[in-house]
Amino acid sequence: MTDFHDEDALVKEVARHFLSSRGRKLRLGIGDDAALWKPKSGFVTILTSDWFLEGSHFLRQRHPPDSVGWKCLARAASDIAAMGGTPRCFLLNIALPAAAIGKWLNGFLGGLRRAAKSLDCVLAGGDTTRSERVLISVTVLGEIREGQEILRSGARPGDLLYVSGTLGEAECGLRLLRKNGGRVNLKNIAMRKHLYPEPRVELGRWLAETNLATAMMDLSDGLSTDLPRLCAGSKVGALVDPERLPTPHGMDRESARQLALHGGDDYELLFCVSPARASLLPAKFRKLRLTRIGEIAAGRGVRIIGKNGKPEPLRAAGWDPFRQED
Amino acid sequence: MTDFHDEDALVKEVARHFLSSRGRKLRLGIGDDAALWKPKSGFVTILTSDWFLEGSHFLRQRHPPDSVGWKCLARAASDIAAMGGTPRCFLLNIALPAAAIGKWLNGFLGGLRRAAKSLDCVLAGGDTTRSERVLISVTVLGEIREGQEILRSGARPGDLLYVSGTLGEAECGLRLLRKNGGRVNLKNIAMRKHLYPEPRVELGRWLAETNLATAMMDLSDGLSTDLPRLCAGSKVGALVDPERLPTPHGMDRESARQLALHGGDDYELLFCVSPARASLLPAKFRKLRLTRIGEIAAGRGVRIIGKNGKPEPLRAAGWDPFRQED
Repeated sequence: MTDFHDEDALVKEVARHFLSSRGRKLRLGIGDDAALWKPKSGFVTILTSDWFLEGSHFLRQRHPPDSVGWKCLARAASDIAAMGGTPRCFLLNIALPAAAIGKWLNGFLGGLRRAAKSLDCVLAGGDTTRSERVLISVTVLGEIREGQEILRSGARPGDLLYVSGTLGEAECGLRLLRKNGGRVNLKNIAMRKHLYPEPRVELGRWLAETNLATAMMDLSDGLSTDLPRLCAGSKVGALVDPERLPTPHGMDRESARQLALHGGDDYELLFCVSPARASLLPAKFRKLRLTRIGEIAAGRGVRIIGKNGKPEPLRAAGWDPFRQED
Repeated sequence: MTDFHDEDALVKEVARHFLSSRGRKLRLGIGDDAALWKPKSGFVTILTSDWFLEGSHFLRQRHPPDSVGWKCLARAASDIAAMGGTPRCFLLNIALPAAAIGKWLNGFLGGLRRAAKSLDCVLAGGDTTRSERVLISVTVLGEIREGQEILRSGARPGDLLYVSGTLGEAECGLRLLRKNGGRVNLKNIAMRKHLYPEPRVELGRWLAETNLATAMMDLSDGLSTDLPRLCAGSKVGALVDPERLPTPHGMDRESARQLALHGGDDYELLFCVSPARASLLPAKFRKLRLTRIGEIAAGRGVRIIGKNGKPEPLRAAGWDPFRQED
């Protein structure tokens, strides 16, 4: 275990973990006041920044440090994918208690490095300091060809509504982890998705390049919370068909449906396609299922087909830190 | 006082404070998954990210919220200035306890807006969540003409070493605030500098455009901590003349000198100029004093002229969160 007696030593340790990835795409990385970045010619920069806080977004006693490292980058990169862009580099701000330096930090940096490699996204810089809890803030820069970005605001009434993958699986994995007392089982798909989500970068990029999606976002807080955001951005409503939801396996139908509607942390893509072009969308994109779950409607309400076959309001019950009890 | 019952409402409140500045330089700002950014033609992007944490970087009971808002942006923008760049947009990640929503948040956003306006730097997005303490992480993007950036690595033996403004003044202001029991006196220059530092953007840009500085960084942790970083970046040493330090007024010479050597939070620029070009440097740049404080030396040691006239090692005693007691 290395002893980090000062901030410079910690910065060096972080840089050491990322040595092989430095200097390739970035003009200048760690070690100066700031980093320099330039996208490919004809491309613009996409930027996003996300919290990942001990106690709110992960538990240090329950989540493997490797997963914390993977997930803090993956979920921020998902915001880039949600516009059709490709993540390129990131800044890591991390604040740590002394007890987390050493074994925990090593595990964390290992997971972060694996995510960075898998996403082909290099560490460009950041800031370190001391704190009682582990605090992480990740900023990701990506690039997209000018004019190809898919916004939340492009959905039109009549557009068909799609999601990638399975909804509610990550929440299902979280529950399993809780029930297990924190024992990690990577053979379990749901648990793997909770711990090591894979942002849908290739799908997002393909939808941008083909100009198939009229609007898009990623599902981080649950469909019932995120879909109203897309609808607000486009000034439209939506109607969801619960029969169509791609739900997790291994539980009764109603529980699976509730998870698919309200479970967070899936990082799947939610996108709209005009009905005239929907036939161009494959049922699967490189093994990833694409499912039509409803359609965009005029007006402003987000509704779901109820048990009696009639549309009823879809109540937002996804994860929102400001709705939790104090 | 507005009641923020969920995250979306908080995001809207932040956006409301920045309405007038949106959509001008950014292709897309708050409200989508990510923001789009493109520098002027011929320019590259500079990026930096900084922590600003309650308890470590500020005290909620002592520092006016307006100052917290100003300073969190100003100090991150200073890293852009330190390379000769111009800040253009920023991402704000803020985590808040319920008690800080309302009056505190309003004050904070007011100060942040003033800093953003003063720097001509627009809010592009970010992330909000709940937390027991106020946590802030600010990412600033700037631009610089390709190839004009001033790095830490360009100093050569014989270069003259300069600083802008006065050193130790911000630390002096912090001490005054402590002694005062938190009573803010904006007529006091030192206190104003502690609460509302002004990043040296114009000076940095001018040094980059004129190609006068061979190496540069900003002073955030104190000269005795930061100068060794510049020297390490350039693989050189330095010799500081304590008689030349631009020290704060109103105290005995030795105390003033200690503050100038070790006091943090000044956000002045530290830069090197080759002796052949030093005559091109004015004594003042738009009312801001430029002072030669020493020179770059061969070898690796950072030294200071001692009382007996002989060089002795300059011990780093600036602010480092990892050197504090637990």
